[in-house]
Amino acid sequence: MTTELQFFMSESKKKIEAKLPELIDSLLAPESLKKSMIYSLEAGGKRIRPVLLLSVLKGFNQPVEKGLEMACAIEMIHTYSLIHDDLPAMDDDDVRRGKPTNHKVFGEAQAILAGDALLTYSYQLVSTISEEPSKVVSLMTELSRAAGAEGMVGGQVSDMEGENKDLSVEELEQIHHHKTGDLMVVSLVAGAILAGASERDQANLRHFGRELGLLFQIKDDILDIEGDAETIGKPVGSDAGNNKGTYPSILGMDGAKQRLEHHLALALSSLKEVDMDQSLLIELTKYVAYRNH
Amino acid sequence: MTTELQFFMSESKKKIEAKLPELIDSLLAPESLKKSMIYSLEAGGKRIRPVLLLSVLKGFNQPVEKGLEMACAIEMIHTYSLIHDDLPAMDDDDVRRGKPTNHKVFGEAQAILAGDALLTYSYQLVSTISEEPSKVVSLMTELSRAAGAEGMVGGQVSDMEGENKDLSVEELEQIHHHKTGDLMVVSLVAGAILAGASERDQANLRHFGRELGLLFQIKDDILDIEGDAETIGKPVGSDAGNNKGTYPSILGMDGAKQRLEHHLALALSSLKEVDMDQSLLIELTKYVAYRNH
Repeated sequence: MTTELQFFMSESKKKIEAKLPELIDSLLAPESLKKSMIYSLEAGGKRIRPVLLLSVLKGFNQPVEKGLEMACAIEMIHTYSLIHDDLPAMDDDDVRRGKPTNHKVFGEAQAILAGDALLTYSYQLVSTISEEPSKVVSLMTELSRAAGAEGMVGGQVSDMEGENKDLSVEELEQIHHHKTGDLMVVSLVAGAILAGASERDQANLRHFGRELGLLFQIKDDILDIEGDAETIGKPVGSDAGNNKGTYPSILGMDGAKQRLEHHLALALSSLKEVDMDQSLLIELTKYVAYRNH
Repeated sequence: MTTELQFFMSESKKKIEAKLPELIDSLLAPESLKKSMIYSLEAGGKRIRPVLLLSVLKGFNQPVEKGLEMACAIEMIHTYSLIHDDLPAMDDDDVRRGKPTNHKVFGEAQAILAGDALLTYSYQLVSTISEEPSKVVSLMTELSRAAGAEGMVGGQVSDMEGENKDLSVEELEQIHHHKTGDLMVVSLVAGAILAGASERDQANLRHFGRELGLLFQIKDDILDIEGDAETIGKPVGSDAGNNKGTYPSILGMDGAKQRLEHHLALALSSLKEVDMDQSLLIELTKYVAYRNH
């Protein structure tokens, strides 16, 4: 990772991680609910979606502060999806990023409601962004589409339905487009909307985001087999037991690595079409493809 | 119930119940997800929130068609809250309105996701309403506030925390304001926003809605003891086993009935301040207070 990217990522992370609990604290809501919302928001992670949004703003030479609320809204959607995903009825996970999952600490009922509250708050946040109303409405449409039945939630359902089935690589990528990709795409597009970018630039960032989402997933699948348990933060090979299709299980390890290079090339070529300073996003893309955790 | 109200309620119900499945059908999403969303949307009920919204439009002499999307969005929020509420980790209900609950038919994982998808779709719907963007943004802010941690979800949490406790009538009403009232308030306020009503009229409808929410709840509590199981659609006395405070348990039956009259008077006096044809809403309020199911 270049020093510039490293610095930008850590600065962005700091800003987002300062803002998130502040936003929850300001709610007139039961303390126990706020506590469970903050607990999962503070569980960390790479904050890749906020970083994408802020990178776009920087690339268009805009202050990143312009995107903090929207970035937090997207991170709240991501976080609620993890809380619901970890529930006993879903993936039944007790630990995430080294911490007990939300329902393990607060109980299932509270975890369901904390997820619902984060999901709802993200729209409240978007609706109060100080931009022209037409931009706010666009942000709303983009976010709700990406997060809902046509996007992330639909991807979750397809993912469940794909378990124990022999998926083709096309079917696998359809699932990833929605389950993982759509929220990355909306992070980029939201940055572009806030920066006042052209329709054409928005479309190219959308293409880029789709490829980036796949890259992210292929690399995760590869790390799950070749990674070091300490570094990736979960047991190596843990996907194999899920009966879910992965790139290496469908294409073999060499095939998966070729596919990674293929999507990396496509991502970079879409990105080059965008009329902005692309340096940060190019570095970020390479980081996603070649990271070791 | 007057014939005018009866006619208006049944016409509104028809319009909403035709529109809801149409909206879901139009989604590019997994069929199983759409099926589970439609299943609960079609489970019926009085559609009181949509009726409130459309009554406001009619009272301001506006076409009710103007409010169909927003009314459906609010009904989706109400429906998602019932799906999540019925889950084993929450109220663990197998039957609602005479039909098996969502998770009984589609499984818990799908029920959680169907709720998430309905919740998300409601914001997508609002964001695509063809009105000036500033109105759409106001609708968004109102809905997300009413539905989230400061509103309905917060009320749910307070309700859970109030179980097995001796609540005062003030504490009980705080819970009902958020758990039930806020979504009724937003139905009225959304109608007023769409009709272009003044701030003052919006504020009076807000007061009216708070009282109406309480009326609705007091009457439910009374019916749970005095109602006829056949007519109210659930076993009489079913609240008593929940260890939850009710108006009759706190105030006695006579006290509960006095409280009902008290809130009815307050509701009607706020309503009379609104510069609109109030006849339909007056009838609706009396119906809520004196219904037998």
